Amino acid sequence: MKEKDSQSLIFSFASLREFTTSVFKHFNVPHDDAVLAADVLAYSDEHGIDSHGIARLKTYYDLLKIGRINPNPVISIVREKASIATVDGDNGLGLVVGPKCMEIAMKKAREHGSGWISVRNTNHYGAAGYYPVLALRQDLIGLSMTNTTAGVAPFLGAEKMLGTNPIAIAFPGFNEPPVLIDFASSAVSYGKVEIANRKGEDVPLGWCLDKDGNPTNSPADMINGGALLPLGSDANGSGHKGYCLASMVDILTAVLSGANWGPFAIPFAIHVAPLEKQVGKGIGHFFGAFDIDGFRDKTEFKKEIDEWIHTMRSTRPQPGAEAVLIPGDPERIAYQQRKIDGIPVNKEVVKSLRIIAEETGIDLGV
Amino acid sequence: MKEKDSQSLIFSFASLREFTTSVFKHFNVPHDDAVLAADVLAYSDEHGIDSHGIARLKTYYDLLKIGRINPNPVISIVREKASIATVDGDNGLGLVVGPKCMEIAMKKAREHGSGWISVRNTNHYGAAGYYPVLALRQDLIGLSMTNTTAGVAPFLGAEKMLGTNPIAIAFPGFNEPPVLIDFASSAVSYGKVEIANRKGEDVPLGWCLDKDGNPTNSPADMINGGALLPLGSDANGSGHKGYCLASMVDILTAVLSGANWGPFAIPFAIHVAPLEKQVGKGIGHFFGAFDIDGFRDKTEFKKEIDEWIHTMRSTRPQPGAEAVLIPGDPERIAYQQRKIDGIPVNKEVVKSLRIIAEETGIDLGV
Repeated sequence: MKEKDSQSLIFSFASLREFTTSVFKHFNVPHDDAVLAADVLAYSDEHGIDSHGIARLKTYYDLLKIGRINPNPVISIVREKASIATVDGDNGLGLVVGPKCMEIAMKKAREHGSGWISVRNTNHYGAAGYYPVLALRQDLIGLSMTNTTAGVAPFLGAEKMLGTNPIAIAFPGFNEPPVLIDFASSAVSYGKVEIANRKGEDVPLGWCLDKDGNPTNSPADMINGGALLPLGSDANGSGHKGYCLASMVDILTAVLSGANWGPFAIPFAIHVAPLEKQVGKGIGHFFGAFDIDGFRDKTEFKKEIDEWIHTMRSTRPQPGAEAVLIPGDPERIAYQQRKIDGIPVNKEVVKSLRIIAEETGIDLGV
Repeated sequence: MKEKDSQSLIFSFASLREFTTSVFKHFNVPHDDAVLAADVLAYSDEHGIDSHGIARLKTYYDLLKIGRINPNPVISIVREKASIATVDGDNGLGLVVGPKCMEIAMKKAREHGSGWISVRNTNHYGAAGYYPVLALRQDLIGLSMTNTTAGVAPFLGAEKMLGTNPIAIAFPGFNEPPVLIDFASSAVSYGKVEIANRKGEDVPLGWCLDKDGNPTNSPADMINGGALLPLGSDANGSGHKGYCLASMVDILTAVLSGANWGPFAIPFAIHVAPLEKQVGKGIGHFFGAFDIDGFRDKTEFKKEIDEWIHTMRSTRPQPGAEAVLIPGDPERIAYQQRKIDGIPVNKEVVKSLRIIAEETGIDLGV
């Protein structure tokens, strides 16, 4: 299946990475940090997570331009005890602060068996799944979470109080690819609602509330002062569980580190002014890593993960479904396809890149 | 509201604890272990989690009686590195192995900032929320997970491959009570489906599949060879996220420790023979603890949790809803009520206790 359609332009892996790196360097982000930040965004585009890659570059660009993000942060450990620490990201790009904090967690894991970093004073960090993949390269189990701009109502609530607060964790296989888990704790992402709105389509009940807190099919009703619902949606679907997950992420990332939590999380958007009240610094992330060998022989574990994968794949599928997938399959399938076909970038997104290209003189190549 | 009704008999906290302790001692569970196991079960009954307390005593009793659980296990660390370890529960009661492993995690947290114990060769451990509450007593953040008998279909699957695999975590407040999160990763518990079946009532779509993997309203269809759905239920509700959660718990508890994972998890039931194929020992738990002070001043953190609680409580409720609750509120409300009114025990459960009383000569007191 060729993804190219009239709504998209195709870019190569290399061209998007080069453009992104140059854009960050334009704001005096140091070369290595710019390459790193571009790597985080490229992970999303190359793995089919279109909402978290180049589509967000314009927002990073805008925030760097007005000085709301520090291009050259001094990242520092502010408190520490063997396997744990709190890091201050000095208001840097989450795309730079994130990978560096994940490295600290991984170092602690190698030294103490596990490592846990709660991060404050940071910004949007791309796709949560990028970070556990870093850990896999060292045969560690890796975990990441972040809080985000409030867009989700607590269970039984009528207004946005929590972010879509994602959780990602990955386990390495031996011959099989890793089990890579990465999901937001809301019923769906804001992006899905936005897409339906652009197309003029209804959304299923269970995704959105309108501004009065009533369930709605209309994406516009959500966008105009409504809220997303937590995973599980309502009482029948156990919406309190999604609320619990979002709360856990909010507390580990932001209350524990001293970042802005809940409704105070700094908006990742140029057109939304930061709230007057702040309860901490920036937004918060949380990273973790485990040294598998401290629990079980590493090779034995990885072979058992292969068995686990074979077993889950052998599940009889529901009528109408092709097969049961393993967490991480959709991203791997997209990667294989895009490596050949290139990355389809929505024309609206391309427009935003053209603006950047014009303003900076950086060549977009199309 | 008095909970007593024609379907229940009322017991005092003390009488249920005494009876339970005596039952465990009847099988030569050492005195302190019997008191501990009774404490775990009592936590559920006293906090309104009726599915995980005395209602399960008959199953523990049956399994001890036929020698399928070891009443006097030697719990040992089989592998270890500073902040992490794997423990073999020697096929003991999960109600005894669990608290002891949580204590090891807490000791590691005090020494190394965090502590993580993956446990194999153990059995059903009661309510997941009991364990983080142990950590709260030492001002630690505590976490627990367990895998359980397969009852849940993976996303798009037609058959049971994973347990209801719960996750619990708790954060201490200062003047406010803790934020106590405890939920199964399935859309609903098997217990809810069983209750509907007993009452001859339908269940909402999104809870169950029948034996062919089709969505069903009929609890009987699920019970007769069907499966529960993961949190999120279907594609519209993001059922893949519940599948991801259940997978994460299964791997951390059972693949990492060398226990039986996925469909091989040992059934917690006398009428279900253990599977012929085993891929490990017993079932698995996973416990974690964090020393808050290694991240942030403990008192500062607890006061900020109070603020977080006030903020979430101040959420405007949905039309028809009274208020937004904090995770842990339902258990606290039940506790306050039951401390005064006593514990209502369903007559079917009382019948099972009478059988135990008769067979052992232990006085049930009613």
